[in-house]
Amino acid sequence: MGPLTVWPVTGLPEVRAGDDLAGLIARALGADPLRDRDVVVVAQKIVSKAEGRVIALSSVEPSARARQMAEEAGRDPRVMELVLRESRSIVRFERGVLIAETHHGFVCANAGVDRSNAGAPDAVVLLPLDPDASAARLRAELGDRSGADVAVVVTDTFGRAWREGHVNVAIGVAGMLALKRYAGQFDPDGYELRVTEIALADEVAAAAELVMGKLDRCPVAVVRGLELPGSDETAQTYVRPKEKDLFR
Amino acid sequence: MGPLTVWPVTGLPEVRAGDDLAGLIARALGADPLRDRDVVVVAQKIVSKAEGRVIALSSVEPSARARQMAEEAGRDPRVMELVLRESRSIVRFERGVLIAETHHGFVCANAGVDRSNAGAPDAVVLLPLDPDASAARLRAELGDRSGADVAVVVTDTFGRAWREGHVNVAIGVAGMLALKRYAGQFDPDGYELRVTEIALADEVAAAAELVMGKLDRCPVAVVRGLELPGSDETAQTYVRPKEKDLFR
Repeated sequence: MGPLTVWPVTGLPEVRAGDDLAGLIARALGADPLRDRDVVVVAQKIVSKAEGRVIALSSVEPSARARQMAEEAGRDPRVMELVLRESRSIVRFERGVLIAETHHGFVCANAGVDRSNAGAPDAVVLLPLDPDASAARLRAELGDRSGADVAVVVTDTFGRAWREGHVNVAIGVAGMLALKRYAGQFDPDGYELRVTEIALADEVAAAAELVMGKLDRCPVAVVRGLELPGSDETAQTYVRPKEKDLFR
Repeated sequence: MGPLTVWPVTGLPEVRAGDDLAGLIARALGADPLRDRDVVVVAQKIVSKAEGRVIALSSVEPSARARQMAEEAGRDPRVMELVLRESRSIVRFERGVLIAETHHGFVCANAGVDRSNAGAPDAVVLLPLDPDASAARLRAELGDRSGADVAVVVTDTFGRAWREGHVNVAIGVAGMLALKRYAGQFDPDGYELRVTEIALADEVAAAAELVMGKLDRCPVAVVRGLELPGSDETAQTYVRPKEKDLFR
C-alpha cells in the first residue's frame, strides 16, 4: 500500500437549495482532476443545503411534547420539535442532552438537527433524507464530469458514547466498501483475528476532517491512494440492528 | 491548510520484550527522515510487546469468577481472568460480549486483552500500562534520533456503541492536541458552533489505519502535513468522567 493523500477543496460558495453541488465541487477542484478510486468526502451540511433541508424556525409549530422537553432542557421548542420529527426513537434524554436514533438508523445527538452554519439566521439544517442516495447521485455526477470512477462519502460529526470529542463519520457511502472484513483470517500463530471488521468509510471521513475544518468553509476533501475494491455497500452497513445492540 | 500525506512504515521485524522500538522504527523509516510536526502512529500491539505485556496463558490461574464468566460466555477462563484484572469495571457482559472500563479509563471490548497477533501460541497481549507514557518516551527517542519535533500517537481499534465496525483510536498521545476546540466560536450568522470539540488524535489514528492493515505486519504509519500547535495533552483527555457519561 502506497501513501495516501488527503487535501481540502477550497473556494466553494455558500450552497443554496437547488444548487448543482457536483458542478460546484467540480469547479472548486480546479486544475487537479479526479482520478479513478479517489474518494470525494462531502460534509452533510452542504448536501442538506443543496437538497433544501434548511428549515426556517418561524415555520415550525412545536407540539406539546416538544414544548415540554424544550422547557426541561432549556432549549428552543421549535428546534426540539424538529429533533423529534427527525427521530425514530429517543435513546437518552438527560441533563439537556438528547441522543436519538434517526429515521436512517444513526444514533447521534439531536438527530443531526443543527442550527450552526445554517446559512441564514433562525434556520436549522436537517440531515439529508437519504444520504446514501445523495452520495450515489454525487458519485454519478462527478463521474460524468471527470470521467473517473470515484467514490463519495457524505459525512457528519458524531459524538461517542464514552469518549470526549466528536469525530467525522460516514452517513452516506457510494462506490466503496463500508467495512473491511478480516473474518476467517488468521494471524501467523493460527488465531482468528479479534477485530474482524474495520469501518473503512468512517476512517476515510475522519481522515478528511483533518483538512476540512468547521470555520473556514471547507466542506469537501479528496482522499487519494486507497486500494478500493468496488462495492455496492452503503452507510446502512453501519446501522447495528437493535437486537445486536447492547446500549439501546 | 495544505495536503496531508499518510504512509505506512514497512519492514519492521517481529517485536520482542525489551526491544528498542524507537530504534526499530527509525531503521524502518529508512531514507525518508522525520520532519517537525510529523505524527508517528504506532499500533498498541508492538508497544505492548516491546514493554513485555505479553502473557503466557499457562501462567494464569483463573479465579472462580473468571471461570464462571468464561463458562457463561463460552470462552477461555484464563483469558477472562486477564480481562478482569485489566478492568476497573464491567460496563456490559451480555451475549458473550464483555465491554469493560480499563484501568486507564477507556471503554472497550475485553479491556483491550487480545489473543491475536500475540507473536506466540497460547499467549495474549495486554494494553500498555501507561500508553501516554509510552507515547512520550517514543516521542523523545524518535526526536533524539531524527532531530525533529514529532508527535506520537499509540492506537488500538475499538468498537462503537451503536455502529458496526471498529475504528482506530488514540490510547496514547504525546506532542499534539487531543481535542481541537471550537467552543465560543461562531458561524457567519452569529450562532455558536454545535460541535465544539473534535477528537483530533482519534482522527489521526483513523487516518493512519487506512494504510496500516492488520495482516501485513505494518503497525506504524506517519501522518505529515497537520498544522499542529504544541500541546501537553494526553489520551486521558478523551476519558469522559463518569458523572458526565449517559451510557455507563
